[in-house]
Formats: sequence, structure tokens, C-alpha cells
Amino acid sequence: MLQKIDHLGIAVKSLEAAIAHYEQVMGLTCEQIEEIESQKVRTAFFEVGQTHIELLEPTSEDSPLAKFLEKNGEGIHHVAYYTDDIEAQLKKAQEAGCKLINTEPVTGAGGKRIAFLHPKSTNGVLTEFCTKDG
Amino acid sequence: MLQKIDHLGIAVKSLEAAIAHYEQVMGLTCEQIEEIESQKVRTAFFEVGQTHIELLEPTSEDSPLAKFLEKNGEGIHHVAYYTDDIEAQLKKAQEAGCKLINTEPVTGAGGKRIAFLHPKSTNGVLTEFCTKDG
Repeated sequence: MLQKIDHLGIAVKSLEAAIAHYEQVMGLTCEQIEEIESQKVRTAFFEVGQTHIELLEPTSEDSPLAKFLEKNGEGIHHVAYYTDDIEAQLKKAQEAGCKLINTEPVTGAGGKRIAFLHPKSTNGVLTEFCTKDG
Repeated sequence: MLQKIDHLGIAVKSLEAAIAHYEQVMGLTCEQIEEIESQKVRTAFFEVGQTHIELLEPTSEDSPLAKFLEKNGEGIHHVAYYTDDIEAQLKKAQEAGCKLINTEPVTGAGGKRIAFLHPKSTNGVLTEFCTKDG
């Protein structure tokens, strides 16, 4: 079962400019800035209700996120749903014929276990399931 | 202040196919299907935690949503934040130099008062503020 939208990942060119937007226009507070070397991104997190906004800036031209920005420009990159049973959720998706990027959970930021569904199977929305560390 | 993400609007070509995805793959329940004639869309709502997923299908070729789909394909159309003081939130945005689509709230689906910020000012994310009816 999906409990909530855990976070929205938003691709941005400049983390500093986007942080200023979310602070000054939206009135949210930047909680944390973190570099994730394996994915070649820098991230900034803002809490809003049950959900976080996760801004994502590429740290290298060969970052997959840099390619996303080149193709699509700034905007929503992915939607992550929190589930308390990621294996059951993946099994359900697979049985329904959904194309998975990760057939088994991998470790994401903050030690969470995560898996992505392919946007071709999800109405163009790159979709992540995530759960607390096992 | 922004209390929560009220809903995510997702542009889809076929409401029926997208409903099947959110029911069978995601395990969510379609709560309501509604046609909004003024915007030339049909919508379907799913609850997940504090937030709703709002699927949007154009009902006419000259619907603004049909143009969005032509240009971008299926995917996230807008992100709506719930606020208990939409006037203050709009004033804050305007003072910070944000381009607004609605400088004053208009009436949206379900009698909510809503206003959109321009995606050029919001890192490519069409952003809505909404509040309960006044």
C-alpha cells in the first residue's frame, strides 16, 4: 500500500537560484543540502506537510540529470511514493505488466530502500517507490 | 504558509487507461470522475496520504490541456500547494518578483479558491496555490 507522497524530485540548473525561489516565493525552509556523488547531483530538501521537495542539480556534464535537463529543461523529475512494503508493491506492479527500472530495491539517499518504475509504463511520470531502511 | 501538497495534476491521453494504471499498478482507488466543461477536461481523483493525484484528460482538441499533451506528452502538468492564506501567499510571491498567472484567486474545481504561478518563475513547474472556499 502507498502511504503518502514521500517527495517530489525537481531538476534545476542552479541549486542556489532554486533554493532562493522556494525560500522567498514559497516561504519554505531549506533543511539540508547534500551531494550524492554516485548520481552526480547536489540536492536540497524542503518539508511541506507529509512531503519533501527535493531539488536536484547536476554536478557534472555526464550526470544523467544533466541529460534530463538538456532534453526537458527544468521541471519535475520524479514522484516518490512511500510504502511500508516495497516488495509487495513491486510485485503488484510487475504482475500488472508495468515496466520496472529496478526489479529489486536499491539503496538510495539517507539509507532508504528505493525502486523506480519506467515512465513509459506510468503515463510519463518517472515514479519511485521508497521505504525506510530494511 | 504552505500546509501541504494538495494535489498533483497529471496530463494523460486516456483517462480510462490511466485510471487502470493507478488502480492496478499503484493500488490506489479512483474516488471521483468529473468533467470540468470550462477547462475542457475530464478528471479522476485518487487519494494518497494528504495529497490527491488528479488525472486530466482533454475533452476537446482545442483544450489547453490538449496543447500541453501535444508539446510535452503525458506527465506532470502542475503541482498544487494548500495554503490557509492565499492572498498572503500571492503577495509574498509577487514581492519576490515571481510572475503570476492569476494575481487574484479564481474559483476552481470543488469551489476551491486557486491561483497559478507562471512556470517561467518556478523552475519549470506550473505551480498552483489553493485554499478552501472563502
